[in-house]
Amino acid sequence: MNTLFADRIQQAKPSFVREILKAVSDPNLISFAGGLPHPDSFPFNELETASQQIFAAQEPNVFQYSITEGDTALRDYLIKRYNDKFQLDLTLDNLIITTGSQQGLDLLTKLFINKGERVVMEDPGYHGASQVFTMYESELRGVPLVNNALDVDKLAELMPDAKLFYTVPNFQNPTGFATSHEQKRKIADIVAKNNAYLIEDDPYGELSFEEGLDRTCYHALIPDNSILLGSFSKIISPGLRVGWMIGPKEVISAAATAKQSTDLHTCYIAQKMLWNYLDSNNLDTHIEQIRAQYKSQRDSLLTALRANEALKDITFHTPQGGMFIWAELPKDLSSEAMLPFALKNHVVYVPGNVFSVESNASHALRLSFSYLSKEQLTEGVARLAEAYRTYRATR
Amino acid sequence: MNTLFADRIQQAKPSFVREILKAVSDPNLISFAGGLPHPDSFPFNELETASQQIFAAQEPNVFQYSITEGDTALRDYLIKRYNDKFQLDLTLDNLIITTGSQQGLDLLTKLFINKGERVVMEDPGYHGASQVFTMYESELRGVPLVNNALDVDKLAELMPDAKLFYTVPNFQNPTGFATSHEQKRKIADIVAKNNAYLIEDDPYGELSFEEGLDRTCYHALIPDNSILLGSFSKIISPGLRVGWMIGPKEVISAAATAKQSTDLHTCYIAQKMLWNYLDSNNLDTHIEQIRAQYKSQRDSLLTALRANEALKDITFHTPQGGMFIWAELPKDLSSEAMLPFALKNHVVYVPGNVFSVESNASHALRLSFSYLSKEQLTEGVARLAEAYRTYRATR
Repeated sequence: MNTLFADRIQQAKPSFVREILKAVSDPNLISFAGGLPHPDSFPFNELETASQQIFAAQEPNVFQYSITEGDTALRDYLIKRYNDKFQLDLTLDNLIITTGSQQGLDLLTKLFINKGERVVMEDPGYHGASQVFTMYESELRGVPLVNNALDVDKLAELMPDAKLFYTVPNFQNPTGFATSHEQKRKIADIVAKNNAYLIEDDPYGELSFEEGLDRTCYHALIPDNSILLGSFSKIISPGLRVGWMIGPKEVISAAATAKQSTDLHTCYIAQKMLWNYLDSNNLDTHIEQIRAQYKSQRDSLLTALRANEALKDITFHTPQGGMFIWAELPKDLSSEAMLPFALKNHVVYVPGNVFSVESNASHALRLSFSYLSKEQLTEGVARLAEAYRTYRATR
Repeated sequence: MNTLFADRIQQAKPSFVREILKAVSDPNLISFAGGLPHPDSFPFNELETASQQIFAAQEPNVFQYSITEGDTALRDYLIKRYNDKFQLDLTLDNLIITTGSQQGLDLLTKLFINKGERVVMEDPGYHGASQVFTMYESELRGVPLVNNALDVDKLAELMPDAKLFYTVPNFQNPTGFATSHEQKRKIADIVAKNNAYLIEDDPYGELSFEEGLDRTCYHALIPDNSILLGSFSKIISPGLRVGWMIGPKEVISAAATAKQSTDLHTCYIAQKMLWNYLDSNNLDTHIEQIRAQYKSQRDSLLTALRANEALKDITFHTPQGGMFIWAELPKDLSSEAMLPFALKNHVVYVPGNVFSVESNASHALRLSFSYLSKEQLTEGVARLAEAYRTYRATR
């Protein structure tokens, strides 16, 4: 390691998922590992029309520098959507467009965290979030998340010394768990009482498979103490890299100052393409299709997993939305030790410990179903079962 | 200011240029302030074709997540271009695509600078760079840049305690100055001898108005101790937010790890559009047109400035490329004090002190000519002269 690198880089590790997928060049691999949306979920033809509209307008300034906060029409659309959906009272000053919600996380950590200051997050939790918090040399602490429930007593214990609590409330990455309304109220109270900020990262909230799930957002409960991160990645396209951050005006204003020195603004033509798309299409109708598709994929996967005798002592948690199933092997087994057996059988997943903050999730693993066809899901399960069988035989 | 904000934010100020342009809603304003490329320099029709090609390929994965390092074909094109132009021996591992070169700066500062560590830059220098260095709480020092020449003795004095030296070698922002070959050699030696890194930020290098200017890049002189930042912003489009970073493999690899947690990757469709454009068009022919256009604008501005009797005691430095003219009032005058007079006359520029690191540039100002028509340039000078006259009359 280069000795001139800053301390924060000495601790940084490239993403496990990314590295393993680079290393494995197996054309027959069935990957439960990546968190990729299905390409069928991209409204390709509608985006083509949206793109044509940009050029038809003959307005070269679509290629000019644009404002840091993002395209006003796009922000206005998002504000209205949130106000309608959650009975909020947001104005333009409450929202900034970000280069994916990953940038939102980076900006918020930049805004709030001095070296050594405490950030609390769900454990297991989104690896891309713990990477950011580590990069800013925070004191990162985890609160156990087990069977759809956060350990709120532990949260209450950790928050007095924390500035931020990070959560993915809906169909969490990696567990698929959703926080109940009652839990949300308790968590919101703890964060607000401690005068900290709650970051609710909500890329999957729209992808619910059932009616009647809790639709509260933290920003409706504690607007002064919460910041919401949203993204088009899972509902339109991740490659466009357009997300947003909703929060108190002074936070959004400071985020704009920080964003200015980070990338000036988010790719304007991508914003414009999205706005043209949203202006001419019904986003909810499109999302309905994705929900139906992913629900069917989840069902295929769960059915195959549960029908397989060899997998009967593994617990598979049923997610009510999103893209992931969390699986738990018997506690004395290791998903990492099983990985070579999986790769030999041309199948891959992400071992649980990749998502660990302080906890031990070595017996768990994440299965992503969004990218795979029914046939791939079924065949993948057969391979997984064979990997599990051969792994167990070595013990 | 929110008391939970990190120390780095307490020091951060939004860009002067941005704030003043937001504040002034004067439809008759002639702005020498913004550093915007001329919309005529965007190859609008060719980008439309490039965009159509994307959709014609019927490949939905253009909307999928992509690799952090950037599109391979685009990186390959850039590598070849640099190798040809500067007789370098770069490979793909030496280049990463960034979300504009502004992100390159943010990533490099993240990679190298712990709080309190020294960064040295040209003084006056690019404001967006000093914003980044301040954001990472570096000890920021300036080396005087006067009449196309850097104070190399001062550089030699400051570098033993520095990790980075930042320079815009060609047609610098704000001065338009270009570093001579001889100076580049001296500067490179000082940086390499001190085992530091030189960041050469080169958005304007292609925009030279004369043949035979020095074309050395620092990366050819000290490949192990330098990192080059490049951008499509001034030669194709800034709104697409696509730039690149060239450097030693271990730096590029660490930059990729840092970029992963910052925005995952740069907007893929923007990269693809640029690659399609570059594959079907001659970039050098396009750049020739921009050069001719900007040279003519520079000439119009200089001619008008020098022909105006009221401005005769102001020094206007002739840039040999780029987008800016640096002007110096008599030392006892203040470009900031003159600003209200300018605004009253519907003209605006950027006061020199916006670009100051440690120096006093209160008598100087930056005039950008790239965005204005010949008529606007001429009329802008008349207004500037009137502003100067009325300002002087108050003293």
